[in-house]
Amino acid sequence: MYTLAHLAQITNAQLIGDPAAVIRRARPFDAAEEGDITFAAAAAYRARAGESAATAIIVSSPIESTKKNLLVASNPKLAFARALEALHAVAYRPLGVSDDLVVGQGGALGQDLSIHPRVTIGRDTIIGDRVTLHPGVVIGDRCRVGDDTVIHANVSVYDDSRIGCRVIIHAGTVIGADGFGFVRDEQGRQVKLLHLGRVRIEDDCEVGANCAIDRGGFSDTVLGRGVKLDNFIQVAHNCEIGENTVVAALSGFSGGTRIGRNCMIAGQVGTVEHVSVGDGAIIYGKASVINNVKPGAVMGGMMPAQDHNSWRRSQVLYSKLPEIVRRLSRLEKTVRDRAPDAPEDTGDR
Amino acid sequence: MYTLAHLAQITNAQLIGDPAAVIRRARPFDAAEEGDITFAAAAAYRARAGESAATAIIVSSPIESTKKNLLVASNPKLAFARALEALHAVAYRPLGVSDDLVVGQGGALGQDLSIHPRVTIGRDTIIGDRVTLHPGVVIGDRCRVGDDTVIHANVSVYDDSRIGCRVIIHAGTVIGADGFGFVRDEQGRQVKLLHLGRVRIEDDCEVGANCAIDRGGFSDTVLGRGVKLDNFIQVAHNCEIGENTVVAALSGFSGGTRIGRNCMIAGQVGTVEHVSVGDGAIIYGKASVINNVKPGAVMGGMMPAQDHNSWRRSQVLYSKLPEIVRRLSRLEKTVRDRAPDAPEDTGDR
Amino acid sequence: MYTLAHLAQITNAQLIGDPAAVIRRARPFDAAEEGDITFAAAAAYRARAGESAATAIIVSSPIESTKKNLLVASNPKLAFARALEALHAVAYRPLGVSDDLVVGQGGALGQDLSIHPRVTIGRDTIIGDRVTLHPGVVIGDRCRVGDDTVIHANVSVYDDSRIGCRVIIHAGTVIGADGFGFVRDEQGRQVKLLHLGRVRIEDDCEVGANCAIDRGGFSDTVLGRGVKLDNFIQVAHNCEIGENTVVAALSGFSGGTRIGRNCMIAGQVGTVEHVSVGDGAIIYGKASVINNVKPGAVMGGMMPAQDHNSWRRSQVLYSKLPEIVRRLSRLEKTVRDRAPDAPEDTGDR
Repeated sequence: MYTLAHLAQITNAQLIGDPAAVIRRARPFDAAEEGDITFAAAAAYRARAGESAATAIIVSSPIESTKKNLLVASNPKLAFARALEALHAVAYRPLGVSDDLVVGQGGALGQDLSIHPRVTIGRDTIIGDRVTLHPGVVIGDRCRVGDDTVIHANVSVYDDSRIGCRVIIHAGTVIGADGFGFVRDEQGRQVKLLHLGRVRIEDDCEVGANCAIDRGGFSDTVLGRGVKLDNFIQVAHNCEIGENTVVAALSGFSGGTRIGRNCMIAGQVGTVEHVSVGDGAIIYGKASVINNVKPGAVMGGMMPAQDHNSWRRSQVLYSKLPEIVRRLSRLEKTVRDRAPDAPEDTGDR
Repeated sequence: MYTLAHLAQITNAQLIGDPAAVIRRARPFDAAEEGDITFAAAAAYRARAGESAATAIIVSSPIESTKKNLLVASNPKLAFARALEALHAVAYRPLGVSDDLVVGQGGALGQDLSIHPRVTIGRDTIIGDRVTLHPGVVIGDRCRVGDDTVIHANVSVYDDSRIGCRVIIHAGTVIGADGFGFVRDEQGRQVKLLHLGRVRIEDDCEVGANCAIDRGGFSDTVLGRGVKLDNFIQVAHNCEIGENTVVAALSGFSGGTRIGRNCMIAGQVGTVEHVSVGDGAIIYGKASVINNVKPGAVMGGMMPAQDHNSWRRSQVLYSKLPEIVRRLSRLEKTVRDRAPDAPEDTGDR
Repeated sequence: MYTLAHLAQITNAQLIGDPAAVIRRARPFDAAEEGDITFAAAAAYRARAGESAATAIIVSSPIESTKKNLLVASNPKLAFARALEALHAVAYRPLGVSDDLVVGQGGALGQDLSIHPRVTIGRDTIIGDRVTLHPGVVIGDRCRVGDDTVIHANVSVYDDSRIGCRVIIHAGTVIGADGFGFVRDEQGRQVKLLHLGRVRIEDDCEVGANCAIDRGGFSDTVLGRGVKLDNFIQVAHNCEIGENTVVAALSGFSGGTRIGRNCMIAGQVGTVEHVSVGDGAIIYGKASVINNVKPGAVMGGMMPAQDHNSWRRSQVLYSKLPEIVRRLSRLEKTVRDRAPDAPEDTGDR
C-alpha cells in the first residue's frame, strides 16, 4: 500500500493529481478498480482513460480531458513494472534449511537460506546468502551459487557450474550437461568428445523452465549479466550470450554461437555452429541464422501460415524457382532478339 | 477377457458372428492371434480380413467375403480404442500414502490416494480422491488437484495452480512458472514483470512429458476441458486453449494466444503474441501463425525437405523474388508496348 | 600423464619426434601449452604449427617446416578425442548405494554401483553392474538398466523400459511416457489410445538433457546401438532410430518414423508420421521430412534469416507464386503467338 506520491517516486514519474491517494494494487486497464493503479500506453487506452475505475493511470504524457490521477512516465510499461513490483512483490523471508538436506563434504552454506526439503548438494559446493533451493534441486560438486539466487523445483546442476547472484532458474532446467560432440571412428561408431569446460551464468540472469545449457568443451558456456531466457532454450557448448539479451521459447543455439548484448531473439529460432550475432540485433521467430548478423540488424525468416491449399501450390512452385527463372530469362532473350534496335536491357538480374 | 457380445456393447458396434467368442487382447492387424480383436479401417486391411488370425475384427461396414467375426462400428478406430481400454486398462488400486510425504500446513488430502515416495506438497494445497503422485513430484502452496488425476515423476507445480479431475500430467512437466515478460529500463537492463495470474488445467486434460505451462500475468493461463498436449509444448502466459484441442510435440504458443475448441495443431508450430485461432482449425506442422485464423480453416506453412542442392538454388532465388517479379513486369510492359493494338492485359497481378 | 610414444599407440597415430616427451593434457590449439597435446586439422592451424606452445600436435600428414613433435593420424579429430579420453577421463570408482534408496520388491541390483541419494526404483527392476544413478532418478517397475550405464539427475523412466549397457542419459529426460494417440468420440472428446509397447535403448546410446522418448503403442520405440541424441529430442511412439545416428537439439520424430543407420539429423528438424529416412542420410537444420528419404541423400529445407524487410517482400511474393507463374505462362504464349514461324518452345516447364 503506497500513496500516489510515493509511487511516483518509485516509478520515477511526474504526478498529476492527488499525492495522498492510496494505491493498493496494480492491475491491467480493463480490470482496474478503486484503489488500483493501471497503465495506458496505447492510444486506444489513453482515449478511454476517463472511463477507468482505477485510482491512478500511468501514461506517457498528460491527458487534458480527464481529471484522473496520472503518473506521467517516459516509459509507462517500465513504470508499471516497478509499481507492480512495489505493490505485489513478497519480501524475502528465509525459511531455513530443511533437516533432510543432503550435502557433500567441503563447501559452505551461506546465511538466511531457504532450502526446501529434498535438496541434494555435492562436495565442495559453495552456496551464497539468502539462496532459495526448491524441492528436488540437485547441485553437483564444486559449484558456486551466488547470493539471493532462486532455483526452482527439480532443476539439475552438473558439477563445476557457476551461477551468479540474483539469478532465477525455473523448474526442470538442466545446467552443465555435456555438450553434443562426437566423432566417427573407423567402424562408424560415434566417439564422445570429453567436455572439460563449464557453464557460467552471470548475475541477474533468469532462465526459464526446462531449458538446457551445456558445458563447454574446454572453455565455458556463458550467459552474460542480465540475460533472460524463456522456456525450452537450448544453449549448446561454448555459446556466449551477451548482457541483457532476451530469448523466447524453443530457440536453440548451436555450439560456439556468439550472441551480442541487448539482442532480442524470438521463439523457435536456430543458429548454425560458430555464427555471430551483433549487439542489439533482432531476430524474428523461427528464423535460421546461418550467417553472421551485423549489430542492430533486424532479421526475419519464417513461413507464415496460409491456407493449406494455397501453401501447397506455392510450395510446389518454390521448388521450381530455378526453372521459372530460366523460363523468364529465355523469354527476355526472345523478346530482346526480336527487337535488335531495342536498347540493351540492363536490368539487375 | 470379454465375450464378443459384451465387447460389441462396450464399443457400441454391431456384431456379425459368434456372440460367445472369447476375446483376451486387442492387437494391431498384423500381430493379432487367436483370442485377439483387431481392426481394419484401411481398404488394404479390409481386403486381407480373411487372412487374419484374430478372433474378431472391427470394421466400418460388413465384409461379405469372410466368415470372420466382425464388429461393425461407424468409427473403427474409436471402437478399437474402447476395446483396448476394456481389455488392457488396469483398474485403479490405491497404493496409499508414502510415509515420507512432506506436506505443508493447511490443505487436505483426499481418500484412496497413491502417493509414491519422495513427493513434496506445499501449504494449503488440496488433493482430491484417488490421486496418483509419482516420485519426485513437487506441488507448491495453495494448489488444487482434482479427483482421479495422475501426475508422473518429477513434475513441478508452482504455487496457486489449479489442476482438474482425471487429468494426466507426464513426467518432467512444469506448471505455473513465471511468464516471460520483461521491459528494458533506462540502462538497458531487463526488468521483470511480476506474474500474479495462475495456471488452470480443466478436467480430462492430458499434458505430455517436459511441457511448460506458464502462469498468467494477471488472469490465468487455461487449458480447457479435454485438451491434449504432446511433449515439449510451450504455453506462455495468458494463453487459452479451447476444449478438446490437440497439440503435437514442440509447438509453442506466445503470450495471450487464443486457440479455439476442437483444433488440431501439428508439431513445431508457433504463434505470435495475442493471435486467435478459431474453433476447429487445423494447423499443419511447423507453420507460424502470425495472423488470426478463422474457424475451420486449414493452414499450412513449412518448407519440406528437398535435395540440399536444389533447396539451395531455390533459396537463393527466393530472396530474389522481388527482382524476378520486376523483370517479369518489365517484360510484360515491353511486349504490351510493341503491340499497341493488343487488348489491355487485365491479369490479376 | 603419458609419453608421446604411448599416446601414439592409444591414438593409432604415427609419431614424428620425441617418443619420451611427456604429455599431461589435451587442449585446443590456441590454448595449448608446454606439456599439452593439441590438434591442427584445418589448413590455417597447420600453417601455424610452429607457433604453438604445445609439446605435440596431431595432424593428418607430416609438416616439413616444423620440428614440433607430431602425431600423424588419418583422422586428427578422432585421434584427439582419444587423447582427450586417455588424459582426462576419470576412471569409474563405485560410490556405493545410498542408504536412502527406495526400491520395490523383486528385481535385483548389480555390483559396484554408484547410487546417489534420493533415487527411487520400482518393483521387479534389474539394475546391472557399475551403474550410476544420480539424485532424483526415478525408475519404474519391470525395467532393465544395463552395466556401466549412467543416468543423470531427475531422469524419469516409466515402467517396462529397457536401457542397455554403457548408455548415458542426461538430466531431466523422460523415457517411456505414453505416446500421443487419441481418437475423437461422437461428442468430440479425445479418447486415449492405451499404449502397451515399451522403450528400448540399446547399448552405447547417449541421450541428451530434457529429451522425451515415448513408449510404443504395441511394439517398442527403439534407439539402436550407439545412437546419440542431443537435448530436447522428441521421439514419438514406435519410432526406430538406426545405429550410430546422431540427432541435434530440438528435433522431433512423429509416430512410427524410421530413421536409418549412420544418419546425421541437424537441429529443429521434424518428420511426419511413418516416414522413412534411409541409412546415411543427412538432414539439414529445420527441414520438414514429409516424404521418404533415400539412403545417402542430403536434404535441406529451412528459411535462412535475411534482412527483415527483404524477407517480408519475398514472403508476400512467395504466396503469389502461382499468380507469378500464370503471368509468365501468359506472356510466353503471347510472345509465341506473335511469331507463328518460331520453333515450338520445348522448355521444361
